[in-house]
Amino acid sequence: MSSASLRALLAPRTVAVVGASRSRTSVGGEVFANLVCRPFAGPVYPVNVAASHVQGVRAYSSVNEVPDTIDLAIVAVPAAETPRVIAACAEAGAKSAVVVTAGFGEAGDEGARAQAAIAATARKAGMRLVGPNCLGVVSTDPGVALHAAFATGWPPRGNVSIASQSGPLGIALLDEARDHGIGVRHFVSLGNEADVSAEDLLEYWEDDAETRVILLYLEVFRDPRRFLEVARRVSRTKPIVVVKSGRSPAAAGAAGSHTGALATRDAVVDALLTQAGIFRAATLEELFDAATLLNSGSMPAGKRVAIVTNAGGPGILAADACQARGLAVPPFDDATARALAGVLLQPSVRNPVDLLASARPETFDSVLPIALGDHGIDAVLVACVPTSSAEVTDVARVIARARGYAVKPVIACVMGKRGVDQARTILHEARVPVYSLPESAASALAAAAGRAGPASGAESAAKAPGLETQGARARVLARTRGGEGKEGRWLAPDETATLLDAFGIRCIPVVQAADAGAAAPAAPRGVEMFVGATRDAAFGPIVAFGTGGVALELWNDVVLRLAPVTDAEARWMLDAIRGRRLLDGFRGGPRADRDALADAILRVSRLMEEVPEVADVDLNPLVALEPGQGVVAVDARVRVCARP
Amino acid sequence: MSSASLRALLAPRTVAVVGASRSRTSVGGEVFANLVCRPFAGPVYPVNVAASHVQGVRAYSSVNEVPDTIDLAIVAVPAAETPRVIAACAEAGAKSAVVVTAGFGEAGDEGARAQAAIAATARKAGMRLVGPNCLGVVSTDPGVALHAAFATGWPPRGNVSIASQSGPLGIALLDEARDHGIGVRHFVSLGNEADVSAEDLLEYWEDDAETRVILLYLEVFRDPRRFLEVARRVSRTKPIVVVKSGRSPAAAGAAGSHTGALATRDAVVDALLTQAGIFRAATLEELFDAATLLNSGSMPAGKRVAIVTNAGGPGILAADACQARGLAVPPFDDATARALAGVLLQPSVRNPVDLLASARPETFDSVLPIALGDHGIDAVLVACVPTSSAEVTDVARVIARARGYAVKPVIACVMGKRGVDQARTILHEARVPVYSLPESAASALAAAAGRAGPASGAESAAKAPGLETQGARARVLARTRGGEGKEGRWLAPDETATLLDAFGIRCIPVVQAADAGAAAPAAPRGVEMFVGATRDAAFGPIVAFGTGGVALELWNDVVLRLAPVTDAEARWMLDAIRGRRLLDGFRGGPRADRDALADAILRVSRLMEEVPEVADVDLNPLVALEPGQGVVAVDARVRVCARP
Repeated sequence: MSSASLRALLAPRTVAVVGASRSRTSVGGEVFANLVCRPFAGPVYPVNVAASHVQGVRAYSSVNEVPDTIDLAIVAVPAAETPRVIAACAEAGAKSAVVVTAGFGEAGDEGARAQAAIAATARKAGMRLVGPNCLGVVSTDPGVALHAAFATGWPPRGNVSIASQSGPLGIALLDEARDHGIGVRHFVSLGNEADVSAEDLLEYWEDDAETRVILLYLEVFRDPRRFLEVARRVSRTKPIVVVKSGRSPAAAGAAGSHTGALATRDAVVDALLTQAGIFRAATLEELFDAATLLNSGSMPAGKRVAIVTNAGGPGILAADACQARGLAVPPFDDATARALAGVLLQPSVRNPVDLLASARPETFDSVLPIALGDHGIDAVLVACVPTSSAEVTDVARVIARARGYAVKPVIACVMGKRGVDQARTILHEARVPVYSLPESAASALAAAAGRAGPASGAESAAKAPGLETQGARARVLARTRGGEGKEGRWLAPDETATLLDAFGIRCIPVVQAADAGAAAPAAPRGVEMFVGATRDAAFGPIVAFGTGGVALELWNDVVLRLAPVTDAEARWMLDAIRGRRLLDGFRGGPRADRDALADAILRVSRLMEEVPEVADVDLNPLVALEPGQGVVAVDARVRVCARP
Repeated sequence: MSSASLRALLAPRTVAVVGASRSRTSVGGEVFANLVCRPFAGPVYPVNVAASHVQGVRAYSSVNEVPDTIDLAIVAVPAAETPRVIAACAEAGAKSAVVVTAGFGEAGDEGARAQAAIAATARKAGMRLVGPNCLGVVSTDPGVALHAAFATGWPPRGNVSIASQSGPLGIALLDEARDHGIGVRHFVSLGNEADVSAEDLLEYWEDDAETRVILLYLEVFRDPRRFLEVARRVSRTKPIVVVKSGRSPAAAGAAGSHTGALATRDAVVDALLTQAGIFRAATLEELFDAATLLNSGSMPAGKRVAIVTNAGGPGILAADACQARGLAVPPFDDATARALAGVLLQPSVRNPVDLLASARPETFDSVLPIALGDHGIDAVLVACVPTSSAEVTDVARVIARARGYAVKPVIACVMGKRGVDQARTILHEARVPVYSLPESAASALAAAAGRAGPASGAESAAKAPGLETQGARARVLARTRGGEGKEGRWLAPDETATLLDAFGIRCIPVVQAADAGAAAPAAPRGVEMFVGATRDAAFGPIVAFGTGGVALELWNDVVLRLAPVTDAEARWMLDAIRGRRLLDGFRGGPRADRDALADAILRVSRLMEEVPEVADVDLNPLVALEPGQGVVAVDARVRVCARP
């Protein structure tokens, strides 16, 4: 269904509350009270089998009796009655429903069957369904004013849309948003996602002009491949920040392959989110630090930060925090340094710029345009404390003014008490991101600067040339038929060589050694790397690249990408490993054929795409010869399974 | 001077404020107003050359006129007048002084000279001196009630003592302490530390029964060796948490040695703090998360955490955060699991325990003693949200009760809004650490669990047996006299061998090769490791251990310790490197003589202690032979400098 079908959910003209009760402490009663107290921009119809009026409003005994088209039905009846109510809603032509009732998929097999049944009923009727087991939905659009949720307050209006797979975390997200001065556009508690999913909302928000930043709390990907596809597209225009929990579970693969062992579920999630262009926050705090900056609409073009402060300590702490997060705090160029020295009457000026406690608001006003004008600077962080020479409110006004003329982002860290709340308000109004600790400001800048790199996945997957793929697949099938089964089996060396050869990957021919001494390898001279792949039941084929040989296991130096890997991604992988210096003649060692390595990654990616029977590939070591000489797999293992 | 001399500073019976002015917005006026408004438990004497009374109190024109013994003089006069005032204080027999005035060491050479002069005056008179360039000192002891500071409010009373080398960060520390419900015992703004240093305060707080936790914000170590010695002792009885900024500066060594390059100033600081038994918080937030738990007086004996929650999301997030910080969230033992399943009427119960949204306060009350009773659990984290079945205030009372009967720590994460502030108050009063985000609770538990390990530095430095050290030193000096200079020089191979031999470190004899082919090494078979040392101007001798050969530089896999390294530390170093598996026959490789490796670390440590002319030692690779066979340095370099 198209994302337009969510319009009835997030911008309904009419709402019915089934299970609206007289008691405001019941869920149905609370949702109804929230809707009419806001008040919702259209009519709200309480549906109650027993009461003729609810909280002062005439009630209807069933949805069929509601004298209006129902855009959105909120369902807050016991689980046992929910299927009947959903059927009635569908019959009455309701366009969407939010089932807040719990006791479905999260409560065991019987609940899961009931959940599948209501989802099927809704789908058949073309009715979108949020939940079950959720808190509801909110839209602060003044033309809608939809507070169809319980246990949550009404958030301040803004341009950040939020979806959460956990109700309590949804509440926490709304609370924290308020505390960080972040206004909300839409809030959706996703619950069990029987129908409407995070991906559906991403697509809807892609076209919603008022949504500028998207925040997600996720515990599972119900369809990782679709999530990747949708998020990759949406994140190009709107920043998406995610907290993804559930890092702990066991490894994805269990077949004893290197890649299987390395591709832990969380490492795969990291790869997916990176490929999707999403910033993964490690904590809720980090999520909001980032959202505060992303929501300001002013983004750094790179990682170079100037720090301006009237207090040494916060300046040093900010510089430390920037560097710890991969940002640079570079020296100013000569002209900037001279100009700053002139204004400050200091013999020399470094970054961070310490204006000293004697700085007046005018000092900040003179310094900010100079720092912002340096071509080697992408953003300015102002760390400021109240002093006898400068009230933070006055400094805040100076920073707010800088926000007006500056193309580059200016962000503030205001510490202390005197005037700080007022300074914060001034900065919020000017859409200057403001933090109370230097580390938070640095964390936000790092998240935003991460978007400044080349958009991942901007190009489509590269096609490695000249592959005889159909033949390869047929030959594998011919050779392995009947042998693989569900558990799968490792191909024999000659089978492995045939398959890899069809995908243009050279293997060293296996020679049966007469004795151990004769088997000593005349190994090709080159750099021992690793390329592998594994197939995850949920995430599909995953490609790995790292340092090879014994180092692979010892150092765990590997990066993952979901296949298909693009050209740019393959090249990025070469430089993303810790041992990247090995590729360029490290300490007199051989140089590696980088082009051939990137090509091998693409070929393994193609193999996984085209031969679904292949479960695991380990090329370890894959020896990279001198540039122009290619790569050769010295040890190669391939596991095949019956096609699922 | 003994730490008892700080008694007059932190528990004065009389205070004089020199530079107390009528205007409360001047520094002297503000400090005076704070002292009398609190009010201070003894008399406060304003000293003002011009006014006969200040803020309603009779004033004196000089400290000599004050008709009382002055325990503490606060000096808030212009920098130019400060030396004269300090001299007058000394003459009047003042026991301590706090110089808030700026414009000394931080303001250039002239200021540094003035600072040295006032410190000398104070020292000669036996008067302790805090500052200059600081905010003042605070003691919340009700018998003292000393608010001798400006720009800071009066903190709530408690058992946490705080010192800060930065005034603005000191203010931030006090603000955050209040926000985290942490009560303060003493606060000292250290300023330039002309006399009273962080180490002096650690010693004073060691004997102060009311100080239970110590928080420090540090930018520099003025005497790292003394800091290590004092903090190592104090931290055995009182937890110390530090934010140390200034991570960025250049490497400590610059002589081209491996150790010099690896021993960046920040890595050395890390080593020092670890050896001192101090928890280094990465951010101010982390500092307070830890302090909240440490201040509760209930410490985990290990790293195993049970999580109990009425909301899935926060439970998963807490488990993730625990595991990300090195804690375990292990399965319960069978008896516990059965007991929990019985109480919860669930078929099986896992850790985290999800009580579901239907949980009542009584459910928490039944579950907590069972979870706490599991012998495989060191602490219980309760993550709780308001639901229709449970108000968080009621759950807070249950947790507070558990704090009463539990030996193990119980910590709380309370999310949401309804009743949350009240729940927090209930928990604060019961001394239950409470957080608003699961990640903060996990961060605190990790910090506290870090104290549960074997106390570092508990034993004294081991003496490697049978070393002919005096002779070695004399031989080095005889051989190098005149050649080393200030820049130092690298010893010739035979000199190196002689020196190392005297310290019981075997080198491979160097053979002059006739041609390149003949020089191919018949290297001993073993594991290539690295042992090195460098001498830092401030931190003294530093010993390094890591994976050797080419891997050293590529993977940067090295741990540092300040010499003298103890026996336990040397053994700890073997297991602290990432490549530790190499030592035990990794993937069919040789096993390493661990005893001999630890011994080599101790011998290098001894060498650095006993031969101060040695600036750098690189043993790379130091090949560890099979157990019992010892170690041998295949390549050894030693740099010597003229003794400073």
